[in-house]
Amino acid sequence: MTRAQLIEQIKQKKSFLCVGLDTDIDKIPAFLKEYPDPVFEFNKRIIDATKDLCIAYKPNAAFYEARGLKGLQSLISTEQYIPKDILSIIDAKRGDIGNTSDNYAKAFFDKENTGMDFDAITVTPYMGNDSVTPYLKYEGKWVIILALTSSVGSKDFQYLNTGDGYLYETVIKKANTWAGADRLMYVVGATKSTEFTDIRKHAPDNFLLVPGVGAQGGSLQDVCQYGMTKDCGLIVNSSRGIIYAGNDENFAEAARAEALKLQQQMQEELEKAGVI
Amino acid sequence: MTRAQLIEQIKQKKSFLCVGLDTDIDKIPAFLKEYPDPVFEFNKRIIDATKDLCIAYKPNAAFYEARGLKGLQSLISTEQYIPKDILSIIDAKRGDIGNTSDNYAKAFFDKENTGMDFDAITVTPYMGNDSVTPYLKYEGKWVIILALTSSVGSKDFQYLNTGDGYLYETVIKKANTWAGADRLMYVVGATKSTEFTDIRKHAPDNFLLVPGVGAQGGSLQDVCQYGMTKDCGLIVNSSRGIIYAGNDENFAEAARAEALKLQQQMQEELEKAGVI
Repeated sequence: MTRAQLIEQIKQKKSFLCVGLDTDIDKIPAFLKEYPDPVFEFNKRIIDATKDLCIAYKPNAAFYEARGLKGLQSLISTEQYIPKDILSIIDAKRGDIGNTSDNYAKAFFDKENTGMDFDAITVTPYMGNDSVTPYLKYEGKWVIILALTSSVGSKDFQYLNTGDGYLYETVIKKANTWAGADRLMYVVGATKSTEFTDIRKHAPDNFLLVPGVGAQGGSLQDVCQYGMTKDCGLIVNSSRGIIYAGNDENFAEAARAEALKLQQQMQEELEKAGVI
Repeated sequence: MTRAQLIEQIKQKKSFLCVGLDTDIDKIPAFLKEYPDPVFEFNKRIIDATKDLCIAYKPNAAFYEARGLKGLQSLISTEQYIPKDILSIIDAKRGDIGNTSDNYAKAFFDKENTGMDFDAITVTPYMGNDSVTPYLKYEGKWVIILALTSSVGSKDFQYLNTGDGYLYETVIKKANTWAGADRLMYVVGATKSTEFTDIRKHAPDNFLLVPGVGAQGGSLQDVCQYGMTKDCGLIVNSSRGIIYAGNDENFAEAARAEALKLQQQMQEELEKAGVI
């Protein structure tokens, strides 16, 4: 998916919502257990109920890998079910040397090898450009680099002063030398909304994937105030707050209601900023 | 596997060799393609030919994931075939927030979920202790944290000066506050052997997993001179140099010959240092 297509989708849907498919088989409604692939059945219904309200889906690889072969089949089926005009992000946080990253790219970007054809992958930057550039060989695919995360552990290293700002700022500045805002996005945790101002100095045009709104407690208004650009420039994720909104036969409707609330707030923000 | 068991194994086999199972289906001998699972068949024969010479096997997850469901089946079969008295390391370089790391731990450490029961996992430290501590809930399992890698990209961030040494030193010092040398190892690239001295100041007792000997060109002698401890403290990996030593029906014998060369050099080093 190109940047222009992504922006067009945001304007059409008046939304920059990403639905995180962190689907845990122990948390989905019990009646789904009768289906041959309960996790896929859950995701399918969530997608059907929210696809006009969101512009991205983001399965978290760990939740699928935890179930072995069955889980991988659920992930493959889910990727194939995500409509092609919606950005599909595999939240895999891989990061390795070049020939290993080549193989992860095959795993997630190369339909012929695995059946999966994601548009974007999250990666961790510790090993430098080896962890990023192999994915860029795939035209139209995106790499989303961890910069500043919202977890407690983010304080361990991401705020180290490297003599040229915090480590997360150094990561963004360096990564910007590898590719442009048409191929790279950054993960930026929403619990630190005032830092969006600093991040925008280094990444004025890049889309930022913001994971911490909803269950993790970030403020959408703050994120937009400090992080939104003329092209929106934000993809805000909500996982648990949407997908586990209900736990009975009406879970998909409950998920839709939560997604709609966020979409409406997002529409307001897009209008306020003059994006739409 | 406990630290005492690992050390005992090193002394018995007079070896600290890890065989990296970076098995690429396009690089294995053609005659194996007739088997139902050519990658597992390859790994099985490599294991049979080398298991008395090495103390660890390390499949690289990416090479298996690149083949989707078939690849995951090869990985599961391989893990189950590795003898239980040999350390099994999944080279996955995962790194994520706590509840996601919990799921990766299930994927690789919890036989009931996925059929896999690895002894150790490699992780990347960017997200801090969230990426490490969830694995430590599994008794007897190890976390191997990326510190200094031997790839070109290692220069991008690992050598940043954090005001308290290089980033890789800060990683080691911080991680040592999370667990001891009985649960944590570090990845240290062998192309930088003089830096082992500095690393040993921060990690005097931890085992170091050294990936860069063999095809990547590090010197075993240098690594041992600067990195070996009274308990050995080193696990030196060779992947391509061993597993692709031959490419015909005698590939396993060729692999054994290369492994034997390394084991003999290692025996010399262990004797020189008085470990055995």
